[in-house]
Amino acid sequence: MVRGRISRLSVRDVRFPTSLGGHGSDAMHTDPDYSAAYVVIETDAEDGLKGCGITFTLGKGTEVVVCAVNALAHHVLNKDLKDIVGDFRGFYRQLASDGQLRWIGPEKGVVHLATAAILNAVWDLWAKQEGKVTPLTNDPRTLVSCIDFRYITDVLTEEDALEILQKGQVGKKEREEQMLAQGYPAYTTSCAWLGYSDDTLKQVATALQQGWLRADLPVKNLSLQMMDANQRWDVPEAVEWMSKLAKFKPLWIEEPTSPDDILGHATISKALVPLGIGVATGEQCHNRVIFKQLLQVKALQFLQIDSCRLGSINENLSVLLMAKKFEIPVCPHAGGVGLCELVQHLIIFDYVSVSASLKNRMCEYVDHLHEHFKYPVVIQRASYMPPKDAGYSTEMKEESVKKHQYPDGEVWKKLLAAQEN
Amino acid sequence: MVRGRISRLSVRDVRFPTSLGGHGSDAMHTDPDYSAAYVVIETDAEDGLKGCGITFTLGKGTEVVVCAVNALAHHVLNKDLKDIVGDFRGFYRQLASDGQLRWIGPEKGVVHLATAAILNAVWDLWAKQEGKVTPLTNDPRTLVSCIDFRYITDVLTEEDALEILQKGQVGKKEREEQMLAQGYPAYTTSCAWLGYSDDTLKQVATALQQGWLRADLPVKNLSLQMMDANQRWDVPEAVEWMSKLAKFKPLWIEEPTSPDDILGHATISKALVPLGIGVATGEQCHNRVIFKQLLQVKALQFLQIDSCRLGSINENLSVLLMAKKFEIPVCPHAGGVGLCELVQHLIIFDYVSVSASLKNRMCEYVDHLHEHFKYPVVIQRASYMPPKDAGYSTEMKEESVKKHQYPDGEVWKKLLAAQEN
Repeated sequence: MVRGRISRLSVRDVRFPTSLGGHGSDAMHTDPDYSAAYVVIETDAEDGLKGCGITFTLGKGTEVVVCAVNALAHHVLNKDLKDIVGDFRGFYRQLASDGQLRWIGPEKGVVHLATAAILNAVWDLWAKQEGKVTPLTNDPRTLVSCIDFRYITDVLTEEDALEILQKGQVGKKEREEQMLAQGYPAYTTSCAWLGYSDDTLKQVATALQQGWLRADLPVKNLSLQMMDANQRWDVPEAVEWMSKLAKFKPLWIEEPTSPDDILGHATISKALVPLGIGVATGEQCHNRVIFKQLLQVKALQFLQIDSCRLGSINENLSVLLMAKKFEIPVCPHAGGVGLCELVQHLIIFDYVSVSASLKNRMCEYVDHLHEHFKYPVVIQRASYMPPKDAGYSTEMKEESVKKHQYPDGEVWKKLLAAQEN
Repeated sequence: MVRGRISRLSVRDVRFPTSLGGHGSDAMHTDPDYSAAYVVIETDAEDGLKGCGITFTLGKGTEVVVCAVNALAHHVLNKDLKDIVGDFRGFYRQLASDGQLRWIGPEKGVVHLATAAILNAVWDLWAKQEGKVTPLTNDPRTLVSCIDFRYITDVLTEEDALEILQKGQVGKKEREEQMLAQGYPAYTTSCAWLGYSDDTLKQVATALQQGWLRADLPVKNLSLQMMDANQRWDVPEAVEWMSKLAKFKPLWIEEPTSPDDILGHATISKALVPLGIGVATGEQCHNRVIFKQLLQVKALQFLQIDSCRLGSINENLSVLLMAKKFEIPVCPHAGGVGLCELVQHLIIFDYVSVSASLKNRMCEYVDHLHEHFKYPVVIQRASYMPPKDAGYSTEMKEESVKKHQYPDGEVWKKLLAAQEN
């Protein structure tokens, strides 16, 4: 079934001027233009199928990721898709450990985001060729063969991974049917703290005014469940502030400090769990090694994967499996542009084939920019409904891409001309 | 004294084809072309002084860092140098926390290397304008004002930093004179395992053949003191291999596993310290938050800063001070192109003003590519002699830059033409 040699890779800088409306702004990211480095790979198979991959960015810097994709492109070009997916672990490592490029990573930041965009395109093409509505429809052994276990074998070996996925086969059919009928529970972060009493609002507002918190409001439950600090605090500050805010009984505090501070998260977690508050983090955790350690020291109670920050499905799989091993619920980060489209595949797979549980689990959802995708997410009754089209839902409408290309697309030409006047 | 408005920033992709001779190759970086993103800033002060900054790279990917420097340039252009260094902490944070660019970092990988190159240029210009032979010649209060303490106050506060630097004033004059007379002890990694018995060689060679170790040979002491695993091992492997190699009594094992694995280094360290082997790491540790944690969990016995991986002197200062607080010796990474030139300033400052000790301390040295610098390092009796020219020793010879610019410099035009034939 898998066919063709990769004959072309294109990458484009696509930006949506969301900062004009203030969408998505927080204490650390004050003026985001939701953007993507958008990769398309084509083969010589003459079947008309293209693999599309994105990585999410915030505007400026997208050109840097585009540059990194081009630097990695030679690993993909002129390769048979069969050879790539036949040794997907090896291919992942080839990209992630390029002898010259790994110095400017390794497995983090720009080069890793670029790796994700390319790998996302490969997964999309693979699924399209096989007519699968999600690239994760594969037997346990094939999925395990896609994971690079380097640096995580002290917590998860290949055998562990296989065992978890094989156990996940039990009851899988029922869970699939449940997903098709009900979908996966979502919560939204786009409507903030609507509906609180004046007193509650005033006290939270103090923290909000200082740019230290964003209140996340779940679709299903109008209470202040989640708070988001967006990395604003040092460790002692995080403990102090959250102890004061404990009376509002938040389910979690998100990103209380630097995403690199594993021990800091552990300290915060140790102080807050007795108060009934969990720690959530992950959207800026840069690879599986960071997640491994967060799990090892009980530094989080909710694990927030991001579909583009890590090295695509290959690396996210390893994180889902480690989370299962430590019995920590995965509640993905989403929003931006395309993140919901991609992450729905991961989280539905997590329920159907890994965790088999919905307890304390939900997936972020933001109602932005879905109209630019060929196969946009479908939300019903505040739940993600499983995708119905073949692929990884990564394909953008060509018209949208053209219009929003930076700086030459129609939208930007106008905006930049207006700025100059 | 500080004068002028930054009127120009240029950045060039400079590569030396070192892979042709196999210099600097190791298990993970098999074909490095020592390279640099080379930044030059100029002012309108009409004094002819330029600030030069580099960040070290391995060839491919230099263009990605160049792209990131351009994305950051607007933070520098049209600013008064006086305002930049007058609030150097704020300026550091502005670069490191750019609202859109931090998403593709933050403070790691490409954007952080680009930040380093720009900040290195600022420090060079500042020192040149003030006629100082090292940019670190500043009073404790000024130096502290350059450090961003965000995310490290649980270990090092501004007050702690000031106290350490003020204590460092005691005996400073004597240590300065000692450095001028004797220099700072160096060891080299370019001559490998010369001079061992056949038996020793055979056993080490097994590991070496498998690409798992590089033997580092100190200039002053012809014994197998350091071993370098270049991140090749998982945690259990590292412990197993080093337990076998303990009979050779190495002083340290360098980079035994992923530079992101703080807990892994702690586990390895715990197993090896009783065997008399220390853990050394740092050349790929991406920011002060990682070093903070390595120190917190006793994960290293030798701390290897890199002058270009971290955010210039601003961030390296915070790491030197944390190392002092934990009484861990700093043994910098150097080599590549320009790293020796820059790091000599940091390590001599560490001795003169921070640690006041040479015990278990030495600075890496590799005898490559110094001829391309206007003020190259001076090595005498296997020691770094203190710089004598104003600035940060970062300025390259214009002729060298022109010749080695990629892909249009003379050297690369020839090489690329030869490759095509």
